[in-house]
Amino acid sequence: RLPHLDAAGRAHVVDVSAKPVTVREARAEGRVLCSPQVLGMLTAGGLPKGDALAVARIAGLQAAKRTPDLVPLAHPVAVHGVAVDLDVEADGVRIASAVRTADRTGVEMEALTCVVVAALAFVDMVKAVDRHARITDVRVVAKSGGRSGDWVAEDAGGR
Amino acid sequence: RLPHLDAAGRAHVVDVSAKPVTVREARAEGRVLCSPQVLGMLTAGGLPKGDALAVARIAGLQAAKRTPDLVPLAHPVAVHGVAVDLDVEADGVRIASAVRTADRTGVEMEALTCVVVAALAFVDMVKAVDRHARITDVRVVAKSGGRSGDWVAEDAGGR
Amino acid sequence: RLPHLDAAGRAHVVDVSAKPVTVREARAEGRVLCSPQVLGMLTAGGLPKGDALAVARIAGLQAAKRTPDLVPLAHPVAVHGVAVDLDVEADGVRIASAVRTADRTGVEMEALTCVVVAALAFVDMVKAVDRHARITDVRVVAKSGGRSGDWVAEDAGGR
Amino acid sequence: RLPHLDAAGRAHVVDVSAKPVTVREARAEGRVLCSPQVLGMLTAGGLPKGDALAVARIAGLQAAKRTPDLVPLAHPVAVHGVAVDLDVEADGVRIASAVRTADRTGVEMEALTCVVVAALAFVDMVKAVDRHARITDVRVVAKSGGRSGDWVAEDAGGR
Amino acid sequence: RLPHLDAAGRAHVVDVSAKPVTVREARAEGRVLCSPQVLGMLTAGGLPKGDALAVARIAGLQAAKRTPDLVPLAHPVAVHGVAVDLDVEADGVRIASAVRTADRTGVEMEALTCVVVAALAFVDMVKAVDRHARITDVRVVAKSGGRSGDWVAEDAGGR
Amino acid sequence: RLPHLDAAGRAHVVDVSAKPVTVREARAEGRVLCSPQVLGMLTAGGLPKGDALAVARIAGLQAAKRTPDLVPLAHPVAVHGVAVDLDVEADGVRIASAVRTADRTGVEMEALTCVVVAALAFVDMVKAVDRHARITDVRVVAKSGGRSGDWVAEDAGGR
Repeated sequence: RLPHLDAAGRAHVVDVSAKPVTVREARAEGRVLCSPQVLGMLTAGGLPKGDALAVARIAGLQAAKRTPDLVPLAHPVAVHGVAVDLDVEADGVRIASAVRTADRTGVEMEALTCVVVAALAFVDMVKAVDRHARITDVRVVAKSGGRSGDWVAEDAGGR
Repeated sequence: RLPHLDAAGRAHVVDVSAKPVTVREARAEGRVLCSPQVLGMLTAGGLPKGDALAVARIAGLQAAKRTPDLVPLAHPVAVHGVAVDLDVEADGVRIASAVRTADRTGVEMEALTCVVVAALAFVDMVKAVDRHARITDVRVVAKSGGRSGDWVAEDAGGR
Repeated sequence: RLPHLDAAGRAHVVDVSAKPVTVREARAEGRVLCSPQVLGMLTAGGLPKGDALAVARIAGLQAAKRTPDLVPLAHPVAVHGVAVDLDVEADGVRIASAVRTADRTGVEMEALTCVVVAALAFVDMVKAVDRHARITDVRVVAKSGGRSGDWVAEDAGGR
Repeated sequence: RLPHLDAAGRAHVVDVSAKPVTVREARAEGRVLCSPQVLGMLTAGGLPKGDALAVARIAGLQAAKRTPDLVPLAHPVAVHGVAVDLDVEADGVRIASAVRTADRTGVEMEALTCVVVAALAFVDMVKAVDRHARITDVRVVAKSGGRSGDWVAEDAGGR
Repeated sequence: RLPHLDAAGRAHVVDVSAKPVTVREARAEGRVLCSPQVLGMLTAGGLPKGDALAVARIAGLQAAKRTPDLVPLAHPVAVHGVAVDLDVEADGVRIASAVRTADRTGVEMEALTCVVVAALAFVDMVKAVDRHARITDVRVVAKSGGRSGDWVAEDAGGR
Repeated sequence: RLPHLDAAGRAHVVDVSAKPVTVREARAEGRVLCSPQVLGMLTAGGLPKGDALAVARIAGLQAAKRTPDLVPLAHPVAVHGVAVDLDVEADGVRIASAVRTADRTGVEMEALTCVVVAALAFVDMVKAVDRHARITDVRVVAKSGGRSGDWVAEDAGGR
């Protein structure tokens, strides 16, 4: 049974008050696919131009902290560290986040929220020149700390 | 040049005060890929069980209204109508949103935000049983109203 | 059928983009019942002491503006005026709000949200001395503007 | 004296930094009175139809987490578990919430906020067909953990 | 009398529903004073290094949109354009904002909120190396549109 | 190097998960300069009239709790106590805040945010009668708890 639903199928916020405070980390990744025209506007000599990537990064950092406001059954978590970056690739940008906490539950949702909101902010920036921009392949790629043990996805990018 | 950046590359919220109030609509789509095990927990006889899809739908509706809080350069928009739904498919769920407004700027970001936050809420629900759930293929699929004209993406699903 | 649910029973934000902008007002009322001991702490010579009522009033004013963040299917509305007051009565306080807008939909939910959050803030203030404080009889008492016509509840208090 | 006001009557957030972290729970209840016509629209064969009750439940869960944003003098609390449910009765719905935390202060306000916002969302859903819907009898019915000891109200419903 | 207080001194949100929608602009300025050591960390060859100024700019843009959440008696305003910049000076940074809207009330508070939150974000960045950083001289410097007429402060900086 | 920027100059939320939970306090101060006409409207016989100062105080208390929403790189902190007050002086008001927590990082930003938002709310109240109101001299004046040791600014006012 899905833990977020009770026996009658009703949603609830799962009680974690009895879980111990431990250091936990999660990493997530995703991509935004966009046109070469857009990528040319974003970079010069291999370097980002202006604030385009900074806006996406900062949107991602802030969103990680607002996860429980967005995801109805997510717990408020003491977000203790967040990093997110965007790498320009041939057909778009790759976004990778890492979130750490010392708390009673994991931060996978915070890491995912960081990536998707950075992706939204990136699409917002480029949508006037590329209406086909696409957010794709967003997933948790690593997790450590907590009862369920550590793991790393086979297709995780490096960081 | 990207309109969200000024000549020096600095981000700003583009001035739309001189644009007319017109009715505008945007539609977006995306998918969450997950395991057959999860899909079996979500449905019985072809029907959703419990609140799983309702949580994702309501998260999406609410997020559409909070777009300017999440996307730094997005305008506050008078969101006048939002619908979002999740269809269970063979390898996951397909999410489609439609947002309408009578305002000075379009609602593509609201439609995208609706889809990605519904997707986040869905992943949150299933992550205990499927750590490989993946949000993918999120994009605007149709837009009407406003100066840039109407369009529908070739690969848009029906609704 | 309830307008907030579609034919399949799914919740959505009802499309109001085609409705005209008109001036609309709603008034709501409610009460918090509490002990004479608490009422004695709140007043001296018939006047409120300190910030107790101000905290509740300001909480109510702010909550009126945040209604669409709290009520999933409520539209963002341009809240153009809000007043709220608390009157000390024999067995508690009576709270009355009035909200005005020039917008495409009514402000009944804003008026109700104003009253209940003012009531919450009041209970928060007194709960250490009265654990039995009770919020009761919260309802819309008058509405004007908009298609459905004006009305005043028979049991509305004066203002 | 009310603890939320200082000697001069000025509001402040009471310092709880020296209190120990303990597991605490609070339960609250309330009702929304509405017409038989509405109740008939909400149920079929004793079961809820569509998302009507799910919207109210999810609104309540989310609001519990946002209590310190709404109630000016409430502390941010690590909400570790929330459940809320609506039971259809002869003359309306009964709403009951339970909130748990391991933190330095109690969660009575979170439990009350959960009930009143679920009630607001319910009223929003039915207001087009019942303008006389009324939120009533909202109160804390049980509390455990913390210095002030455990208690249960005599008129608490079961859960 | 202050318009935000009624005859009894109670705060309310002033009713602006009868005011016309017109294009309005406000500009605000302020400074953060900090040490030469900090200024050296922020610039290289006259150019900003890294995201330090971008974080403050983006914080300011977002805060302009959240003014009614922060300022209890401020109206929700359709923020239609925001620009903010930070100039490095000999003894700190000068921050200037400009906010535009087509709405029923002015945006002075939005322009001020933009400046002070950009200033807060800047102080946050430098506080580890300069505990004496100081936010100062924050004021509205120009206003246009609306009934009260246009004006520019004598000591306004250029932009 | 500024700790909030990584080696490439990119902003991140500094990881504090390994820091111990200790009781920490910060105090901040600032002033709003305004005209004698305004000061006369605010006081009668040396006492504040109406809610003017209460609105600013409550805005400040609430803003302290919302610091991580406003300041992009600030951590969510368990705000355990907040006090803020406004003293009427010859040429304006002096605002002083004190924030306490038992958490892993300090509350200087919370104390500053409390002061500047109280100042914004005060300016909002008086701007109709004094367009030259000015927020000035906002700074941290004392800090205790935490690794960096206790200190008090030489020019701190009393409290």
